[in-house]
Amino acid sequence: MGLIVQKFGGSSVADAACIRRVASRVLETHQGGHQVVVIVSAMGDTTDDLIKLAHQITAMPSDREMDMLMSTGEQVSVAMLAMALHAMGAEAVSLTGPQAGIFTDAMHRKAKIMGINPRRVWKHLKAGQIVIVAGFQGQTPKHDIATLGRGGSDTTAVALAAALKADRCQIFTDVEGVYSADPRIVKKACKLDEIAYDEMLELASLGAKVLVSRSVEFAKKYGVELEVLSSFSKAPGTIVKEEVKSMEDIIVRGVSADKDEIKITLAGVPDHPGVAARLFKDLAGANINIDMIVQNISAQGMTDISFTVPEEDLARTRRVMQIAAKSVGVHAVNVDTDIAKVSIVGVGMRGHSGVAFQMFKTLAEQGINILMISTSEIKISVIVRKALADKAMIALHKAFRLDKSRVARGKSAAKAKVRRK
Amino acid sequence: MGLIVQKFGGSSVADAACIRRVASRVLETHQGGHQVVVIVSAMGDTTDDLIKLAHQITAMPSDREMDMLMSTGEQVSVAMLAMALHAMGAEAVSLTGPQAGIFTDAMHRKAKIMGINPRRVWKHLKAGQIVIVAGFQGQTPKHDIATLGRGGSDTTAVALAAALKADRCQIFTDVEGVYSADPRIVKKACKLDEIAYDEMLELASLGAKVLVSRSVEFAKKYGVELEVLSSFSKAPGTIVKEEVKSMEDIIVRGVSADKDEIKITLAGVPDHPGVAARLFKDLAGANINIDMIVQNISAQGMTDISFTVPEEDLARTRRVMQIAAKSVGVHAVNVDTDIAKVSIVGVGMRGHSGVAFQMFKTLAEQGINILMISTSEIKISVIVRKALADKAMIALHKAFRLDKSRVARGKSAAKAKVRRK
Repeated sequence: MGLIVQKFGGSSVADAACIRRVASRVLETHQGGHQVVVIVSAMGDTTDDLIKLAHQITAMPSDREMDMLMSTGEQVSVAMLAMALHAMGAEAVSLTGPQAGIFTDAMHRKAKIMGINPRRVWKHLKAGQIVIVAGFQGQTPKHDIATLGRGGSDTTAVALAAALKADRCQIFTDVEGVYSADPRIVKKACKLDEIAYDEMLELASLGAKVLVSRSVEFAKKYGVELEVLSSFSKAPGTIVKEEVKSMEDIIVRGVSADKDEIKITLAGVPDHPGVAARLFKDLAGANINIDMIVQNISAQGMTDISFTVPEEDLARTRRVMQIAAKSVGVHAVNVDTDIAKVSIVGVGMRGHSGVAFQMFKTLAEQGINILMISTSEIKISVIVRKALADKAMIALHKAFRLDKSRVARGKSAAKAKVRRK
Repeated sequence: MGLIVQKFGGSSVADAACIRRVASRVLETHQGGHQVVVIVSAMGDTTDDLIKLAHQITAMPSDREMDMLMSTGEQVSVAMLAMALHAMGAEAVSLTGPQAGIFTDAMHRKAKIMGINPRRVWKHLKAGQIVIVAGFQGQTPKHDIATLGRGGSDTTAVALAAALKADRCQIFTDVEGVYSADPRIVKKACKLDEIAYDEMLELASLGAKVLVSRSVEFAKKYGVELEVLSSFSKAPGTIVKEEVKSMEDIIVRGVSADKDEIKITLAGVPDHPGVAARLFKDLAGANINIDMIVQNISAQGMTDISFTVPEEDLARTRRVMQIAAKSVGVHAVNVDTDIAKVSIVGVGMRGHSGVAFQMFKTLAEQGINILMISTSEIKISVIVRKALADKAMIALHKAFRLDKSRVARGKSAAKAKVRRK
């Protein structure tokens, strides 16, 4: 018997039929002899509907009041799921975030969990009840309700699992797990049995939308073993866990593409110390997240600087850059929206040379031009033309032998290792 | 400068436009130099919608989970109203019932307020903020959310007004105040300027739906002066307050009719001590509220007993009576659904004889037969045929000179008294 935390997203609890399905799934786990804590998001489009409601009143609602409003979405879900479990004869109780002892900072709409007091959750678990906790919310030091921002329910699940020292934290979603690439684009992409936290973090930040970075960081920090799995099937999912030696057998774990970035090039930047710092200070001040930065070789006291930012920040970035560029004397600010970032990720890269070479060679063979390059210890990213991103992914997926057959071999190799222990 | 508690019902906050109108009204009071605490109900049909949602899951949801679900309705309203006030440049903050320090017993769906700790409300008031509190809800000793049942938002308003020692508690509704009779039936009915708690209580329990009895009882207990007024006009409303001597100038304050009762007659009841007790014990055990009871003179060791109950309890009452009647040996149980109760209410009755006589005479002149009579210190009720109830009301309203002209005179008489002091 163990303690399992299960998280179900908004699409898993979209209506009464979905809620009953989730209830069956939860009950099955409970009847398997486990203690179960369930985290749920708001039903379907509830959060969007509440935002629209607020916008009927004002275009600029205060963050505190938005949290007061939006937190009702999860509160409805937990009550509905408790009712569904009761109707199946199960003992269950719903709790709001504050009732579950989830304490956050005071940053409304993007609060961070500061601590958890799971006393009340334990009390209900010990009474044999299934405990259902509203995701995405907690209580500030001033006893206000705060929401955690995007992916907040995942974070709630991971944080509660850490606080309860749960045996596993299962994140139910509408896909069967984490894939070696987006299966809608790379037909031969396959579900990964396991992935290291750091790999998952890189993939999350690269646009693989299964888990948000924040919850993976939390899981890594507290050593919570995550399982990403489908709420619509019984297939095992992907385990996200601490890196183990055998993971290095696989050089590249996955390939991803992010088509929502744009490239800004500042041409003719005076090559003095402090100029780049000045430019990027203003961007940071405007809360713009810069991703890749490349500076070319200086010629005649001038240099070119290129960087990428999320497409949604385009207008703000342009404004900031035009002012900043004028004050430091930049020749021109060019915006290129026709780009995509393609990346390969894997902890195995660390011990292997020639990975970058193989990547560039693969792209060259496909006639794909590379516009920018950026690397980390376990990741190589390149910027290419947007229309070529899918082709690049498919080619890289094949070149690094991530297609289904390869993974099957990887799996049996891992199994062989276990046997050898 | 005073402290004013204002309560707005569901129809006053039905949509964004309504909420903006309420915000203007609240802001006006605040700008008039008052501290303002606002209580709001759920928007329009929200509560009904949430009940329907629950019934999609189960026909018998648990009371605790229903409270978890339904309390979100008021939480949405308070956030929306705070946003509307912010948009008008006002300082405002929304609070859930628990956040406002409203503590209840553990009777979910019909909880009673056990105490209020207004510390947080005071803190915001002192900071110059308008404080918006979710009506209809509070926190149980186990830190669960409970709702207060029908008319709960009125009760919240009155209880908070009492706890804050507010100068006035204004109940905004869709009528202009309390009337001398239902103006849809008695065309000459007029709005009362004032009414005593006890008169209001009798009228509330007699089917005048402006205020529920519970909130009036609360107001009476704590001496909170209530004003019932329209959220759609600026006309002054009706003040509900402690009885003062001048109120006795008016013998009858109002006339009301309740068409939702039925009459049960037990014919041939053995006239032994304890028989009536036995019969009514069973009705109480089935949670049936008995209103009027009449027992006729005994003849040959037998008597007839008639009583009235709410129409919705008909089926249960019939079941209980058939069993009980058999065990004590009653000849027959007759049900009469074609009745209505017509009542006159007024604290002035106490000091005046002949009020009952005038009532019976008026009805006799109209050819209206009286089936049952019941009296209290400040009320006389009669049961008549349902079709004659409106005719009876109109005749009594005129006979006791409650038509518009009479009240105007009453008012100037009251004013004259004040001047004499």
